[in-house]
Amino acid sequence: MVRTLVAYNTGVLTSEQRERLCVVLVATRNPLNIGAAARAMSNFDFLRLRLVNPYAPSFREARSAVGAEPLLAAAEVHTSVAGAVADCALVVGTTAARDRELHQPLRGLAEAARLIRGRLRTGRVALLFGSEKRGLSNADLSHCQWVLRIPTRAERGSMNLGQAVAVSLYELAREGRAAPADKLPPAAAEQAERITGLLLEALRASGYVKPRAASAEEKLRRMVRRLHLPADDAEVWTGMLRKVLWRLKQ
Amino acid sequence: MVRTLVAYNTGVLTSEQRERLCVVLVATRNPLNIGAAARAMSNFDFLRLRLVNPYAPSFREARSAVGAEPLLAAAEVHTSVAGAVADCALVVGTTAARDRELHQPLRGLAEAARLIRGRLRTGRVALLFGSEKRGLSNADLSHCQWVLRIPTRAERGSMNLGQAVAVSLYELAREGRAAPADKLPPAAAEQAERITGLLLEALRASGYVKPRAASAEEKLRRMVRRLHLPADDAEVWTGMLRKVLWRLKQ
Repeated sequence: MVRTLVAYNTGVLTSEQRERLCVVLVATRNPLNIGAAARAMSNFDFLRLRLVNPYAPSFREARSAVGAEPLLAAAEVHTSVAGAVADCALVVGTTAARDRELHQPLRGLAEAARLIRGRLRTGRVALLFGSEKRGLSNADLSHCQWVLRIPTRAERGSMNLGQAVAVSLYELAREGRAAPADKLPPAAAEQAERITGLLLEALRASGYVKPRAASAEEKLRRMVRRLHLPADDAEVWTGMLRKVLWRLKQ
Repeated sequence: MVRTLVAYNTGVLTSEQRERLCVVLVATRNPLNIGAAARAMSNFDFLRLRLVNPYAPSFREARSAVGAEPLLAAAEVHTSVAGAVADCALVVGTTAARDRELHQPLRGLAEAARLIRGRLRTGRVALLFGSEKRGLSNADLSHCQWVLRIPTRAERGSMNLGQAVAVSLYELAREGRAAPADKLPPAAAEQAERITGLLLEALRASGYVKPRAASAEEKLRRMVRRLHLPADDAEVWTGMLRKVLWRLKQ
Protein backbone atom coordinates (compact mmCIF):
# COMPACT_ATOMS: atom_id res chain seq x y z
CA MET A 1 0.00 0.00 0.00
CA VAL A 2 1.29 3.47 -0.82
CA ARG A 3 0.45 6.18 1.64
CA THR A 4 1.73 9.55 0.70
CA LEU A 5 0.90 12.02 3.40
CA VAL A 6 2.20 15.12 1.74
CA ALA A 7 2.04 16.62 -1.70
CA TYR A 8 5.31 17.99 -3.02
CA ASN A 9 5.98 20.75 -5.39
CA THR A 10 9.38 21.77 -6.63
CA GLY A 11 9.33 25.02 -4.69
CA VAL A 12 8.12 28.52 -5.03
CA LEU A 13 10.06 29.31 -8.21
CA THR A 14 8.60 29.00 -11.70
CA SER A 15 10.69 27.23 -14.33
CA GLU A 16 11.30 30.59 -16.00
CA GLN A 17 12.69 31.96 -12.73
CA ARG A 18 14.87 28.87 -12.22
CA GLU A 19 16.28 29.39 -15.69
CA ARG A 20 17.50 32.82 -14.61
CA LEU A 21 19.85 31.48 -11.94
CA CYS A 22 23.45 30.99 -13.10
CA VAL A 23 25.64 28.77 -10.93
CA VAL A 24 29.21 29.94 -11.49
CA LEU A 25 32.11 27.69 -10.47
CA VAL A 26 35.34 29.66 -10.28
CA ALA A 27 38.69 27.87 -10.85
CA THR A 28 37.43 24.44 -9.82
CA ARG A 29 40.19 21.80 -9.88
CA ASN A 30 38.62 18.42 -9.18
CA PRO A 31 36.48 16.76 -11.87
CA LEU A 32 34.52 14.91 -9.18
CA ASN A 33 33.53 18.24 -7.67
CA ILE A 34 32.39 19.62 -11.02
CA GLY A 35 30.33 16.47 -11.52
CA ALA A 36 28.90 16.65 -8.00
CA ALA A 37 27.92 20.31 -8.41
CA ALA A 38 26.22 19.48 -11.72
CA ARG A 39 24.33 16.59 -10.11
CA ALA A 40 23.06 18.79 -7.29
CA MET A 41 21.92 21.37 -9.85
CA SER A 42 20.09 18.67 -11.74
CA ASN A 43 18.45 17.34 -8.55
CA PHE A 44 17.09 20.76 -7.67
CA ASP A 45 16.30 21.75 -11.24
CA PHE A 46 18.69 24.63 -11.82
CA LEU A 47 20.28 23.88 -15.16
CA ARG A 48 22.42 26.89 -16.09
CA LEU A 49 26.08 26.27 -15.28
CA ARG A 50 29.01 28.54 -16.04
CA LEU A 51 32.67 27.83 -15.33
CA VAL A 52 35.41 30.39 -14.95
CA ASN A 53 38.87 29.05 -15.80
CA PRO A 54 38.25 25.46 -14.78
CA TYR A 55 41.31 23.25 -14.81
CA ALA A 56 40.85 22.07 -18.39
CA PRO A 57 41.54 18.33 -18.00
CA SER A 58 39.11 18.26 -15.05
CA PHE A 59 36.33 19.83 -17.05
CA ARG A 60 36.87 17.45 -19.95
CA GLU A 61 36.88 14.50 -17.57
CA ALA A 62 33.75 15.64 -15.73
CA ARG A 63 31.92 16.25 -18.99
CA SER A 64 32.79 12.85 -20.47
CA ALA A 65 32.26 10.82 -17.26
CA VAL A 66 29.79 7.94 -17.35
CA GLY A 67 26.49 9.26 -16.06
CA ALA A 68 27.54 12.90 -16.48
CA GLU A 69 24.69 15.35 -16.21
CA PRO A 70 23.42 16.66 -19.57
CA LEU A 71 23.69 20.21 -18.25
CA LEU A 72 27.50 19.84 -18.31
CA ALA A 73 27.40 19.59 -22.09
CA ALA A 74 25.59 22.93 -22.19
CA ALA A 75 27.86 24.62 -19.62
CA GLU A 76 29.54 27.85 -20.71
CA VAL A 77 33.24 28.35 -20.09
CA HIS A 78 34.50 31.87 -19.39
CA THR A 79 37.97 33.29 -18.86
CA SER A 80 36.92 35.89 -16.30
CA VAL A 81 34.37 36.38 -13.55
CA ALA A 82 33.36 39.64 -15.24
CA GLY A 83 32.48 37.76 -18.42
CA ALA A 84 30.60 35.01 -16.59
CA VAL A 85 28.34 37.40 -14.69
CA ALA A 86 27.97 40.10 -17.36
CA ASP A 87 24.24 39.55 -17.97
CA CYS A 88 23.28 39.15 -14.30
CA ALA A 89 21.44 41.84 -12.34
CA LEU A 90 22.55 40.43 -8.99
CA VAL A 91 25.88 38.71 -8.26
CA VAL A 92 26.25 36.82 -4.98
CA GLY A 93 29.39 35.19 -3.61
CA THR A 94 29.46 32.26 -1.19
CA THR A 95 31.65 31.45 1.79
CA ALA A 96 31.59 29.01 4.64
CA ALA A 97 34.44 30.66 6.53
CA ARG A 98 33.56 32.43 9.75
CA ASP A 99 36.67 34.43 10.34
CA ARG A 100 37.26 35.83 6.89
CA GLU A 101 37.49 39.57 6.49
CA LEU A 102 34.94 40.57 3.91
CA HIS A 103 34.36 43.83 2.19
CA GLN A 104 30.82 42.92 1.24
CA PRO A 105 27.73 42.55 3.34
CA LEU A 106 27.26 39.01 4.62
CA ARG A 107 23.89 37.29 4.85
CA GLY A 108 22.82 33.92 6.21
CA LEU A 109 21.65 31.39 3.61
CA ALA A 110 17.95 31.50 4.49
CA GLU A 111 17.78 35.28 4.25
CA ALA A 112 19.96 35.25 1.12
CA ALA A 113 17.67 32.73 -0.59
CA ARG A 114 14.64 34.92 0.07
CA LEU A 115 16.36 37.89 -1.56
CA ILE A 116 17.59 35.86 -4.54
CA ARG A 117 14.11 34.43 -5.14
CA GLY A 118 12.80 37.96 -5.22
CA ARG A 119 15.38 39.08 -7.77
CA LEU A 120 14.79 36.05 -10.00
CA ARG A 121 11.30 37.40 -10.67
CA THR A 122 12.76 40.07 -12.88
CA GLY A 123 16.33 39.22 -13.88
CA ARG A 124 19.31 36.92 -13.87
CA VAL A 125 21.22 36.15 -10.68
CA ALA A 126 24.73 34.69 -10.52
CA LEU A 127 25.73 32.53 -7.56
CA LEU A 128 29.51 32.10 -7.32
CA PHE A 129 31.39 29.22 -5.73
CA GLY A 130 35.15 29.37 -5.32
CA SER A 131 37.90 26.78 -5.71
CA GLU A 132 38.26 23.85 -3.32
CA LYS A 133 41.44 25.18 -1.74
CA ARG A 134 40.89 28.89 -1.39
CA GLY A 135 37.28 29.68 -2.05
CA LEU A 136 36.62 32.96 -3.81
CA SER A 137 39.47 35.50 -3.95
CA ASN A 138 38.98 39.12 -3.00
CA ALA A 139 39.15 39.91 -6.71
CA ASP A 140 36.34 37.40 -7.41
CA LEU A 141 34.29 38.83 -4.54
CA SER A 142 34.72 42.34 -5.86
CA HIS A 143 32.17 41.40 -8.54
CA CYS A 144 29.59 40.51 -5.88
CA GLN A 145 26.95 42.79 -4.38
CA TRP A 146 26.99 40.68 -1.25
CA VAL A 147 28.07 37.31 0.11
CA LEU A 148 26.05 34.46 1.51
CA ARG A 149 27.26 32.16 4.23
CA ILE A 150 26.09 28.64 4.91
CA PRO A 151 25.84 28.39 8.70
CA THR A 152 28.37 25.75 9.78
CA ARG A 153 30.11 25.29 13.11
CA ALA A 154 33.09 27.47 13.92
CA GLU A 155 35.84 24.86 14.04
CA ARG A 156 34.77 23.00 10.91
CA GLY A 157 33.41 25.69 8.67
CA SER A 158 34.75 24.79 5.26
CA MET A 159 32.35 22.71 3.20
CA ASN A 160 32.87 20.30 0.34
CA LEU A 161 32.07 22.14 -2.92
CA GLY A 162 29.36 19.76 -4.16
CA GLN A 163 27.69 19.82 -0.74
CA ALA A 164 27.80 23.62 -0.59
CA VAL A 165 26.10 23.78 -4.00
CA ALA A 166 23.51 21.19 -2.91
CA VAL A 167 22.65 22.97 0.34
CA SER A 168 22.44 26.40 -1.33
CA LEU A 169 20.16 25.19 -4.12
CA TYR A 170 18.02 23.21 -1.69
CA GLU A 171 17.42 26.38 0.30
CA LEU A 172 16.63 28.34 -2.88
CA ALA A 173 14.08 25.73 -3.95
CA ARG A 174 12.78 25.15 -0.43
CA GLU A 175 9.14 25.75 0.21
CA GLY A 176 8.42 28.55 2.59
CA ARG A 177 5.57 26.76 4.25
CA ALA A 178 5.68 23.38 5.90
CA ALA A 179 3.60 20.85 4.00
CA PRO A 180 0.50 19.86 5.93
CA ALA A 181 0.69 16.22 6.93
CA ASP A 182 -2.65 14.55 7.31
CA LYS A 183 -2.68 11.59 9.61
CA LEU A 184 -3.63 8.05 8.69
CA PRO A 185 -7.37 7.65 9.25
CA PRO A 186 -7.61 6.48 12.86
CA ALA A 187 -9.57 3.50 14.05
CA ALA A 188 -13.13 4.18 15.20
CA ALA A 189 -13.89 3.73 18.88
CA GLU A 190 -15.83 0.56 18.18
CA GLN A 191 -12.83 -1.00 16.47
CA ALA A 192 -10.64 -0.14 19.45
CA GLU A 193 -13.27 -1.51 21.80
CA ARG A 194 -13.50 -4.78 19.85
CA ILE A 195 -9.74 -5.15 20.13
CA THR A 196 -9.86 -4.40 23.86
CA GLY A 197 -12.49 -7.11 24.34
CA LEU A 198 -10.60 -9.74 22.38
CA LEU A 199 -7.38 -8.89 24.15
CA LEU A 200 -9.00 -9.20 27.54
CA GLU A 201 -10.41 -12.60 26.62
CA ALA A 202 -7.01 -13.78 25.39
CA LEU A 203 -5.28 -12.56 28.54
CA ARG A 204 -7.85 -14.34 30.70
CA ALA A 205 -7.48 -17.53 28.69
CA SER A 206 -3.72 -17.40 29.07
CA GLY A 207 -3.85 -16.71 32.80
CA TYR A 208 -2.27 -13.24 32.55
CA VAL A 209 -5.42 -11.66 33.94
CA LYS A 210 -7.29 -13.30 36.80
CA PRO A 211 -10.94 -14.05 35.89
CA ARG A 212 -12.31 -11.69 38.55
CA ALA A 213 -9.86 -8.80 38.24
CA ALA A 214 -12.20 -5.85 37.62
CA SER A 215 -9.64 -3.14 36.98
CA ALA A 216 -7.88 -5.05 34.19
CA GLU A 217 -10.45 -4.08 31.59
CA GLU A 218 -10.09 -0.35 32.16
CA LYS A 219 -6.32 -0.52 32.16
CA LEU A 220 -6.38 -2.42 28.90
CA ARG A 221 -8.81 0.01 27.34
CA ARG A 222 -6.55 2.92 28.19
CA MET A 223 -3.52 1.11 26.82
CA VAL A 224 -5.29 0.34 23.54
CA ARG A 225 -6.43 3.97 23.24
CA ARG A 226 -2.85 5.14 23.69
CA LEU A 227 -1.76 3.20 20.59
CA HIS A 228 -3.11 5.55 17.91
CA LEU A 229 -4.35 2.59 15.87
CA PRO A 230 -4.89 3.34 12.18
CA ALA A 231 -8.27 2.09 10.92
CA ASP A 232 -6.79 -0.30 8.34
CA ASP A 233 -4.43 -1.83 10.86
CA ALA A 234 -7.20 -2.27 13.42
CA GLU A 235 -8.86 -4.84 11.15
CA VAL A 236 -5.64 -6.83 10.93
CA TRP A 237 -5.06 -6.71 14.70
CA THR A 238 -8.62 -7.94 15.21
CA GLY A 239 -7.99 -10.89 12.91
CA MET A 240 -4.76 -11.78 14.67
CA LEU A 241 -6.37 -11.68 18.09
CA ARG A 242 -9.29 -13.85 16.95
CA LYS A 243 -6.91 -16.51 15.71
CA VAL A 244 -4.78 -16.46 18.86
CA LEU A 245 -7.88 -16.62 21.03
CA TRP A 246 -9.31 -19.53 19.07
CA ARG A 247 -6.05 -21.44 19.53
CA LEU A 248 -5.86 -20.61 23.25
CA LYS A 249 -9.29 -22.05 23.79
CA GLN A 250 -8.66 -25.34 22.07
CA MET B 1 35.32 47.20 5.95
CA VAL B 2 33.53 44.24 7.40
CA ARG B 3 29.79 44.47 7.44
CA THR B 4 28.09 41.56 9.03
CA LEU B 5 24.38 42.00 8.61
CA VAL B 6 23.26 38.92 10.44
CA ALA B 7 24.14 37.13 13.61
CA TYR B 8 24.46 33.38 13.25
CA ASN B 9 23.69 30.69 15.64
CA THR B 10 24.01 27.00 14.98
CA GLY B 11 20.26 26.49 15.11
CA VAL B 12 17.68 25.71 17.71
CA LEU B 13 19.27 22.49 18.95
CA THR B 14 21.39 22.35 22.09
CA SER B 15 24.61 20.37 21.95
CA GLU B 16 22.97 17.73 24.12
CA GLN B 17 20.16 17.39 21.59
CA ARG B 18 22.62 17.20 18.67
CA GLU B 19 24.42 14.41 20.49
CA ARG B 20 21.20 12.39 20.41
CA LEU B 21 21.03 12.20 16.63
CA CYS B 22 22.57 9.05 15.14
CA VAL B 23 23.37 9.20 11.43
CA VAL B 24 23.22 5.58 10.21
CA LEU B 25 24.81 4.67 6.87
CA VAL B 26 23.56 1.30 5.65
CA ALA B 27 25.78 -0.81 3.35
CA THR B 28 27.78 2.13 1.98
CA ARG B 29 30.30 1.06 -0.69
CA ASN B 30 32.37 4.09 -1.63
CA PRO B 31 35.02 5.42 0.80
CA LEU B 32 34.65 8.91 -0.68
CA ASN B 33 30.97 8.86 0.21
CA ILE B 34 31.65 7.77 3.78
CA GLY B 35 34.19 10.58 4.05
CA ALA B 36 31.81 13.11 2.49
CA ALA B 37 28.99 12.12 4.87
CA ALA B 38 31.37 12.48 7.83
CA ARG B 39 32.48 15.91 6.63
CA ALA B 40 28.90 17.14 6.31
CA MET B 41 28.19 15.86 9.83
CA SER B 42 31.21 17.72 11.10
CA ASN B 43 30.19 20.94 9.28
CA PHE B 44 26.76 20.90 10.87
CA ASP B 45 27.96 19.61 14.24
CA PHE B 46 26.29 16.21 14.40
CA LEU B 47 29.04 13.85 15.50
CA ARG B 48 27.45 10.45 16.14
CA LEU B 49 27.96 8.12 13.17
CA ARG B 50 26.96 4.46 12.93
CA LEU B 51 27.61 2.17 9.99
CA VAL B 52 25.72 -1.01 9.17
CA ASN B 53 27.77 -3.51 7.18
CA PRO B 54 29.95 -1.00 5.36
CA TYR B 55 32.17 -2.46 2.66
CA ALA B 56 35.15 -3.09 4.98
CA PRO B 57 38.02 -1.84 2.75
CA SER B 58 36.02 1.36 2.09
CA PHE B 59 35.54 2.03 5.77
CA ARG B 60 39.23 1.45 6.49
CA GLU B 61 40.20 3.73 3.62
CA ALA B 62 37.79 6.49 4.65
CA ARG B 63 38.96 6.32 8.24
CA SER B 64 42.65 6.53 7.37
CA ALA B 65 42.35 9.16 4.61
CA VAL B 66 44.37 12.37 4.92
CA GLY B 67 42.10 14.95 6.51
CA ALA B 68 39.60 12.32 7.68
CA GLU B 69 37.07 13.64 10.15
CA PRO B 70 37.79 12.69 13.79
CA LEU B 71 34.22 11.47 14.15
CA LEU B 72 35.07 8.56 11.81
CA ALA B 73 37.44 7.17 14.42
CA ALA B 74 34.58 7.10 16.92
CA ALA B 75 32.04 5.62 14.45
CA GLU B 76 30.31 2.43 15.57
CA VAL B 77 30.04 -0.49 13.16
CA HIS B 78 26.99 -2.75 13.39
CA THR B 79 25.99 -5.93 11.60
CA SER B 80 22.26 -5.18 11.49
CA VAL B 81 19.91 -2.21 11.29
CA ALA B 82 18.16 -3.52 14.41
CA GLY B 83 21.43 -3.32 16.35
CA ALA B 84 22.30 0.15 15.04
CA VAL B 85 18.97 1.68 16.06
CA ALA B 86 18.27 -0.34 19.23
CA ASP B 87 18.56 2.64 21.62
CA CYS B 88 16.63 5.08 19.42
CA ALA B 89 13.06 6.15 20.19
CA LEU B 90 12.45 7.37 16.63
CA VAL B 91 13.85 5.73 13.50
CA VAL B 92 13.53 7.65 10.22
CA GLY B 93 14.47 6.43 6.74
CA THR B 94 15.42 8.65 3.81
CA THR B 95 14.62 8.47 0.11
CA ALA B 96 14.93 10.79 -2.86
CA ALA B 97 12.89 8.57 -5.18
CA ARG B 98 9.50 9.85 -6.19
CA ASP B 99 8.01 6.72 -7.66
CA ARG B 100 8.98 4.20 -5.03
CA GLU B 101 6.24 2.20 -3.34
CA LEU B 102 6.56 2.75 0.36
CA HIS B 103 4.83 1.06 3.26
CA GLN B 104 5.60 3.93 5.61
CA PRO B 105 4.27 7.46 5.82
CA LEU B 106 6.33 9.90 3.78
CA ARG B 107 7.13 13.46 4.88
CA GLY B 108 8.92 16.33 3.20
CA LEU B 109 12.29 17.27 4.68
CA ALA B 110 11.19 20.55 6.29
CA GLU B 111 8.27 18.93 8.12
CA ALA B 112 10.42 15.91 8.99
CA ALA B 113 13.14 18.12 10.50
CA ARG B 114 10.59 19.86 12.68
CA LEU B 115 9.37 16.53 14.07
CA ILE B 116 12.89 15.20 14.58
CA ARG B 117 13.93 18.35 16.47
CA GLY B 118 10.95 17.82 18.74
CA ARG B 119 11.89 14.21 19.46
CA LEU B 120 15.55 15.06 20.11
CA ARG B 121 14.41 16.92 23.21
CA THR B 122 13.72 13.66 24.99
CA GLY B 123 15.45 10.79 23.22
CA ARG B 124 17.71 9.44 20.51
CA VAL B 125 16.71 9.59 16.88
CA ALA B 126 18.25 7.47 14.10
CA LEU B 127 18.41 8.87 10.55
CA LEU B 128 19.10 6.13 8.00
CA PHE B 129 20.76 6.55 4.60
CA GLY B 130 20.90 3.63 2.17
CA SER B 131 23.58 2.42 -0.21
CA GLU B 132 24.59 4.40 -3.30
CA LYS B 133 23.05 1.94 -5.73
CA ARG B 134 19.79 0.92 -4.15
CA GLY B 135 19.04 3.16 -1.22
CA LEU B 136 17.34 1.52 1.74
CA SER B 137 15.75 -1.92 1.22
CA ASN B 138 12.22 -2.71 2.32
CA ALA B 139 13.73 -4.76 5.15
CA ASP B 140 15.79 -1.71 6.25
CA LEU B 141 12.70 0.51 6.03
CA SER B 142 10.62 -1.88 8.14
CA HIS B 143 12.62 -0.60 11.13
CA CYS B 144 11.49 2.97 10.40
CA GLN B 145 8.41 4.73 11.80
CA TRP B 146 8.37 6.95 8.72
CA VAL B 147 10.43 8.10 5.79
CA LEU B 148 11.65 11.56 4.82
CA ARG B 149 12.05 12.70 1.27
CA ILE B 150 14.31 15.47 0.04
CA PRO B 151 12.25 17.34 -2.55
CA THR B 152 14.08 16.91 -5.87
CA ARG B 153 12.73 17.11 -9.40
CA ALA B 154 10.92 14.12 -10.82
CA GLU B 155 13.33 13.10 -13.58
CA ARG B 156 16.50 13.47 -11.53
CA GLY B 157 15.46 12.45 -8.07
CA SER B 158 18.35 10.37 -6.85
CA MET B 159 20.91 12.35 -4.85
CA ASN B 160 24.57 11.80 -4.16
CA LEU B 161 24.91 10.29 -0.67
CA GLY B 162 27.15 12.97 0.82
CA GLN B 163 24.90 15.70 -0.56
CA ALA B 164 21.78 14.03 0.83
CA VAL B 165 23.40 13.90 4.28
CA ALA B 166 24.50 17.55 3.97
CA VAL B 167 21.07 18.81 2.93
CA SER B 168 19.27 16.80 5.62
CA LEU B 169 21.57 17.99 8.41
CA TYR B 170 21.45 21.58 7.16
CA GLU B 171 17.66 21.48 7.43
CA LEU B 172 17.84 19.90 10.90
CA ALA B 173 20.22 22.61 12.11
CA ARG B 174 18.31 25.34 10.31
CA GLU B 175 16.47 27.75 12.49
CA GLY B 176 12.85 26.97 12.94
CA ARG B 177 10.49 25.77 15.52
CA ALA B 178 10.57 22.24 16.89
CA ALA B 179 7.39 20.22 17.11
CA PRO B 180 6.10 19.88 20.67
CA ALA B 181 7.60 16.90 22.45
CA ASP B 182 5.44 13.84 22.98
CA LYS B 183 3.76 13.67 26.35
CA LEU B 184 4.65 10.05 27.01
CA PRO B 185 8.26 8.94 26.46
CA PRO B 186 8.16 6.58 23.47
CA ALA B 187 9.47 3.03 23.44
CA ALA B 188 13.01 2.47 22.17
CA ALA B 189 13.46 0.53 18.92
CA GLU B 190 14.72 -2.53 20.78
CA GLN B 191 11.52 -2.70 22.84
CA ALA B 192 9.45 -2.50 19.68
CA GLU B 193 11.64 -5.15 18.08
CA ARG B 194 11.19 -7.47 21.07
CA ILE B 195 7.42 -7.08 20.80
CA THR B 196 7.56 -7.76 17.07
CA GLY B 197 9.48 -10.99 17.73
CA LEU B 198 7.11 -12.22 20.43
CA LEU B 199 4.08 -11.38 18.32
CA LEU B 200 5.46 -13.25 15.34
CA GLU B 201 6.11 -16.28 17.51
CA ALA B 202 2.57 -16.15 18.91
CA LEU B 203 1.04 -15.79 15.45
CA ARG B 204 3.05 -18.74 14.19
CA ALA B 205 2.07 -20.84 17.21
CA SER B 206 -1.59 -19.99 16.63
CA GLY B 207 -1.43 -20.74 12.91
CA TYR B 208 -2.23 -17.14 11.85
CA VAL B 209 1.14 -16.92 10.12
CA LYS B 210 2.48 -19.86 8.11
CA PRO B 211 5.87 -21.00 9.43
CA ARG B 212 7.66 -20.08 6.17
CA ALA B 213 5.95 -16.79 5.32
CA ALA B 214 8.92 -14.48 4.86
CA SER B 215 7.08 -11.20 4.39
CA ALA B 216 5.08 -11.56 7.60
CA GLU B 217 7.95 -10.32 9.76
CA GLU B 218 8.39 -7.09 7.84
CA LYS B 219 4.66 -6.42 7.77
CA LEU B 220 4.41 -7.01 11.51
CA ARG B 221 7.40 -4.80 12.20
CA ARG B 222 5.78 -1.97 10.27
CA MET B 223 2.46 -2.44 12.09
CA VAL B 224 4.15 -2.35 15.49
CA ARG B 225 6.11 0.81 14.49
CA ARG B 226 2.83 2.50 13.56
CA LEU B 227 1.50 2.08 17.10
CA HIS B 228 3.60 4.84 18.73
CA LEU B 229 4.11 2.64 21.78
CA PRO B 230 4.87 4.51 24.99
CA ALA B 231 7.94 3.09 26.79
CA ASP B 232 6.05 2.14 29.96
CA ASP B 233 3.29 0.41 28.06
CA ALA B 234 5.82 -1.50 25.95
CA GLU B 235 6.93 -3.36 29.08
CA VAL B 236 3.36 -4.38 29.83
CA TRP B 237 2.69 -5.49 26.25
CA THR B 238 5.86 -7.58 26.37
CA GLY B 239 4.69 -9.28 29.56
CA MET B 240 1.27 -10.01 28.08
CA LEU B 241 2.72 -11.50 24.93
CA ARG B 242 5.12 -13.69 26.89
CA LYS B 243 2.25 -15.12 28.90
CA VAL B 244 0.06 -15.72 25.85
CA LEU B 245 2.96 -17.35 24.03
CA TRP B 246 3.78 -19.59 26.97
CA ARG B 247 0.16 -20.75 27.07
CA LEU B 248 0.00 -21.28 23.29
CA LYS B 249 3.01 -23.57 23.47
CA GLN B 250 1.69 -25.76 26.25
